Amino acid sequence: MNAFIVYAHPERKSFNGALLQRGVETLTGLGHDVKVSDLYAMKFDPVSDRRNFLQRKDPHTFKQQQEELHAAERNGFAAEIAVEMDKLRWCDLLIFQFPLWWFGLPGILKGWVDRVFAMGFAYGMGRWYSRGIFAGKRAMLCLTTGGPAPMYEPDGVNGDIEQILFPIQHGMLYFTGFSVLPPFIAWSVARVTDAERKAHLDAWGDRLCRAFDAEPMAFPPLEAYDEKFQLKRIP
Amino acid sequence: MNAFIVYAHPERKSFNGALLQRGVETLTGLGHDVKVSDLYAMKFDPVSDRRNFLQRKDPHTFKQQQEELHAAERNGFAAEIAVEMDKLRWCDLLIFQFPLWWFGLPGILKGWVDRVFAMGFAYGMGRWYSRGIFAGKRAMLCLTTGGPAPMYEPDGVNGDIEQILFPIQHGMLYFTGFSVLPPFIAWSVARVTDAERKAHLDAWGDRLCRAFDAEPMAFPPLEAYDEKFQLKRIP
Repeated sequence: MNAFIVYAHPERKSFNGALLQRGVETLTGLGHDVKVSDLYAMKFDPVSDRRNFLQRKDPHTFKQQQEELHAAERNGFAAEIAVEMDKLRWCDLLIFQFPLWWFGLPGILKGWVDRVFAMGFAYGMGRWYSRGIFAGKRAMLCLTTGGPAPMYEPDGVNGDIEQILFPIQHGMLYFTGFSVLPPFIAWSVARVTDAERKAHLDAWGDRLCRAFDAEPMAFPPLEAYDEKFQLKRIP
Repeated sequence: MNAFIVYAHPERKSFNGALLQRGVETLTGLGHDVKVSDLYAMKFDPVSDRRNFLQRKDPHTFKQQQEELHAAERNGFAAEIAVEMDKLRWCDLLIFQFPLWWFGLPGILKGWVDRVFAMGFAYGMGRWYSRGIFAGKRAMLCLTTGGPAPMYEPDGVNGDIEQILFPIQHGMLYFTGFSVLPPFIAWSVARVTDAERKAHLDAWGDRLCRAFDAEPMAFPPLEAYDEKFQLKRIP
């Protein structure tokens, strides 16, 4: 199988760097092919605007989704975006690996999504959620946090981690059709012992060994919604 | 009063551009001072890493929070960050104005938060949430969506907008001590009539007229949490 890791951390000597290395080694050892987009090493530009396109449909007023549809019909995306789209087409498993910054993706990875998940390529024309374009592919998050797990439980001061990750797991990954595996979370990595870090790395390797068999998270299919896109009431 | 609008849209002729203009006119007309950071016009760089700092505490291994604390003690932030910090110190009201992209902030604005909300400046040393550094200041979101409001209700296909905005309103704004006003949301702006757009603009003006009197959103204070930072049980 083909695995694509999008990695967003500015320091390869970090624990995120160790997780990346363990991930690549584990997947390769299992016989999978692996591609990594190391966004900081690539100096990926996360600003989404006119620069996404080789030519413009409307040179006067910039409407991003119109330009995306236009570009999708004629291979009109800038080279740095087109290569990322190719990796998405190629992969069976997509992994976002990042430190949780301000309860979300680092800006460099959020901007990667803004630019690469273009209308006409990743969604559009009725292709979303359970009819999404990437149906049949799997995706999962691998993240590290500053705070310990209790802070991210439903009664924790930071709020429920499931709620915090909802815009990413539901809004980006399920929206485009991926089957979303439960996230791998290494809690409070700056404040734990070496033995705990080793345990995190081993747990990540174990999770990857089961990535193609594990049960995805459950979300309602589009058929469960009415014409206003609200859940149907039982009559 | 002093209002600071952080604006993130690549096209000034957009509806976001019209909202920005109405916001500046309304606040100025009320006698307030207004500063705008137009991130696209400024070509703001949203990548957070070594470039945030004039000098490094540890030139070998990059640990962002350590470098932030070090820089906060000696005015060591890069100039483009320091000027944004000055605007945050100056303001009584902070507004993030943006199109909702992939259920969150555009990458350029997420990266602005990553870089400017530095440890030692915006939080740290026990200063967070109800003891946050920006206590006494107000903040609110002004955003546009692609889909209509029913899609963002609790039973809607996109999920509850309150849940989608939680990482921003609770995780960024309340975390740093702001009193968070209810968001202003202009729904589905690409698909509405001119009359509806005008109504959105008027509603935004009305909201700003009440921005310094309106009731903020309610969140539990830190005193409600135990030593594990989970809500205290009633004994």
